[in-house]
Amino acid sequence: MLTVAETAALLRTFDNILILTHIRPDGDTVGCAAALCAGLRALGKTAYLLPNPGLTDTTTPYFMPYAAPAGFVPDKVVSTDIATVGLFPENAKPYAQRVDLAIDHHPSFERFGKANIVRPEAAACGELIYDILAELGPITADMALPLYVAISTDTGCFAYNNTTAQTHAVAAALMRTGIDFKTVNKVFFRTKTRKRMALEADMLNNMEFYDGGRVVFLYVPMSLMARLEATESDAEELSSLGGQIEGTDCAVTFRELRPNVWKLSVRTGPRINATNVRALLGGGGHAAAAGCTVEAPLADVKHRILRSIAQNAPDFAE
Amino acid sequence: MLTVAETAALLRTFDNILILTHIRPDGDTVGCAAALCAGLRALGKTAYLLPNPGLTDTTTPYFMPYAAPAGFVPDKVVSTDIATVGLFPENAKPYAQRVDLAIDHHPSFERFGKANIVRPEAAACGELIYDILAELGPITADMALPLYVAISTDTGCFAYNNTTAQTHAVAAALMRTGIDFKTVNKVFFRTKTRKRMALEADMLNNMEFYDGGRVVFLYVPMSLMARLEATESDAEELSSLGGQIEGTDCAVTFRELRPNVWKLSVRTGPRINATNVRALLGGGGHAAAAGCTVEAPLADVKHRILRSIAQNAPDFAE
Repeated sequence: MLTVAETAALLRTFDNILILTHIRPDGDTVGCAAALCAGLRALGKTAYLLPNPGLTDTTTPYFMPYAAPAGFVPDKVVSTDIATVGLFPENAKPYAQRVDLAIDHHPSFERFGKANIVRPEAAACGELIYDILAELGPITADMALPLYVAISTDTGCFAYNNTTAQTHAVAAALMRTGIDFKTVNKVFFRTKTRKRMALEADMLNNMEFYDGGRVVFLYVPMSLMARLEATESDAEELSSLGGQIEGTDCAVTFRELRPNVWKLSVRTGPRINATNVRALLGGGGHAAAAGCTVEAPLADVKHRILRSIAQNAPDFAE
Repeated sequence: MLTVAETAALLRTFDNILILTHIRPDGDTVGCAAALCAGLRALGKTAYLLPNPGLTDTTTPYFMPYAAPAGFVPDKVVSTDIATVGLFPENAKPYAQRVDLAIDHHPSFERFGKANIVRPEAAACGELIYDILAELGPITADMALPLYVAISTDTGCFAYNNTTAQTHAVAAALMRTGIDFKTVNKVFFRTKTRKRMALEADMLNNMEFYDGGRVVFLYVPMSLMARLEATESDAEELSSLGGQIEGTDCAVTFRELRPNVWKLSVRTGPRINATNVRALLGGGGHAAAAGCTVEAPLADVKHRILRSIAQNAPDFAE
């Protein structure tokens, strides 16, 4: 495992570099890749990002200035914010065995590169890229803007529990370069599509409470998505809505993927272990957030998850 | 006008201090007053906050440890985050002529104290209090926690346009004291009451678009508030909802105060000057946010504000 100084020294030896981002790319992987690309170009190197078919409207503007032209043949390959080769997009798979440097912040990072650096305590991989770029030279606004996207999106604009003092210290340094952070905040944190708003309104209108109001169920049936002509992008992170409802410490979001196939997202507070709840139905996750997919009619799925919650929730009120 | 060093020196000469907060107290005024009180007590002084009848459930826990007992007779009076004596709560009015030190960050600050300090470029008054406390001695977690409340709430958790690099630098310093910022973020930024959720759902279900989708109207009639048994606290900042809708650059929220009396909040992007829109109906505000109260049936109010928007919006589509 490399140090920041060793990583910077290694990057100085690279040229003709292709940078990889993960499948379903978020602000962190896109921001890290773009900032690193800008930093390498500032050293006079040729560097590009491998096009990622999963970009959204919000991340595209930060990615496109660095997208590799067709036919670019790299000498070196670097990955940013990718924990395992299983998270490579399809077009990145050919590079899985030849990643020269993998830079990540996930505890589950699998060290798949020839050289690797990881910082699991960082809220965003962008914090680590910041330190690497600072070692390579002055951080310009070209690098600071995508890094601000990386750090702000991975922390829900500094509101999630992964935020640290260091996160804010890096944000302060990035903003001192004069970047347009206001547009980033507006686009990522203060804008919702009309369809997203309609989705949330329907979920709130039809939510159901159990266990004396402590457990809430929210529904996203296929019929709702169809009626609103909503896209996957409109439905991103919908499961965070249930976690915001006052007085609840267990929110289950039921998303219908195919007829009678329901993806359940379970978010819990300290009283209930989400993984135990989900274990009775199959699936994976952490103590506070877990998910599983169940093939059954909705009434049956509800009955089973509610029984599982009752078995795992102290003082469950029938 | 005092400097930070002069303010700290003046505070060192004070004792038996009463600290005032503004009417409809927010996280900034409460957090500033509590932090200053903790800082003065750390110097061995007697200091209290004048009870404020407008505290909400979220701000109360940060205020109460410092609330003055009945009959406390101060030698010195300090105000925090209060721009004018017009914003004193009723029980603070007797002190209006005898404020020994007024500390504020509003551009409209009226220098009503015997001594005054203001920093209009600060996103939160908490940033200024931080500097004053740092001049007086080490910042402990007792001071840092309410200061984090002050700074995070006045910036919408670092998402509003008033946020600066300095805001983040202060947040980093506060978090290094080991405060429980996670609870603050959860309570202030990731929790909504069920009634609030229901209010938002109804507003989204009934919103209306004009001007090819660029203008959106949202409604909070008395009948809705009554049906949901919603309180003022549930309805706080409801006008921010309209500003989040993609594709719009003008959001008008119609809140019915009394039968046929509508309070209009107008939020606009660069295309439309909100004050000009509102001017045709009376009221005040800034270029991007303005408000007014109109006594008329809803259909009439809608017609008038829409005509006013059409006159002020280039390319308005009928």
